[in-house]
Amino acid sequence: MKKRSYSCGLDAAVDVVGGKWKALILWGLHDGPRRFGELRRAVPGISEKSLIIQLREMEHCGLVNREVYHQVPPRVDYSLTDLGQSLNQALIPLGEWGEKNMEIIEAIPAA
Amino acid sequence: MKKRSYSCGLDAAVDVVGGKWKALILWGLHDGPRRFGELRRAVPGISEKSLIIQLREMEHCGLVNREVYHQVPPRVDYSLTDLGQSLNQALIPLGEWGEKNMEIIEAIPAA
Repeated sequence: MKKRSYSCGLDAAVDVVGGKWKALILWGLHDGPRRFGELRRAVPGISEKSLIIQLREMEHCGLVNREVYHQVPPRVDYSLTDLGQSLNQALIPLGEWGEKNMEIIEAIPAA
Repeated sequence: MKKRSYSCGLDAAVDVVGGKWKALILWGLHDGPRRFGELRRAVPGISEKSLIIQLREMEHCGLVNREVYHQVPPRVDYSLTDLGQSLNQALIPLGEWGEKNMEIIEAIPAA
């Protein structure tokens, strides 16, 4: 995500949500904090490396909190900030659109 | 966009909306058909080449209609299909989120 000014709210939002994964990670945290491994299972298909990178970016953008518990073994929880929570809410209609049109979308021939 | 099955509606929707431009192009068509040049001016910062590629993909996915009028000079209009229209509607809350949080988003330091 480059620092810049935006032409409109949608432009800004799309820049924050970024590519394929962030919306799914936000959704994976919608019902409370999760450890890394739990979150990875909640986002099917994501690699460990991608999840680490995405979470770091989302922490940087203020969407995700990372809390480290100093116990043995150490425990790290990820959760949504208020900003992340509100973004998650704003993505619900998009998820519903995908759900409703799933058959159409799956039938689109590969490019 | 690769042909595949999806883990949820949000996954499918994000795959269709794709990267940076498609949401903005959808929005650029929200109040009716536009010619290529008009649409390009409605999506600040997009190159001619990107707009051509994105429109082709969106036509392929059934989001956008392309209508050619055989006149001199030839005229090509782009408009939303019903599917494109409904996706555009589903993106409104995301745009509102970006509008509301614009200052916060613009203040995020470059990575």
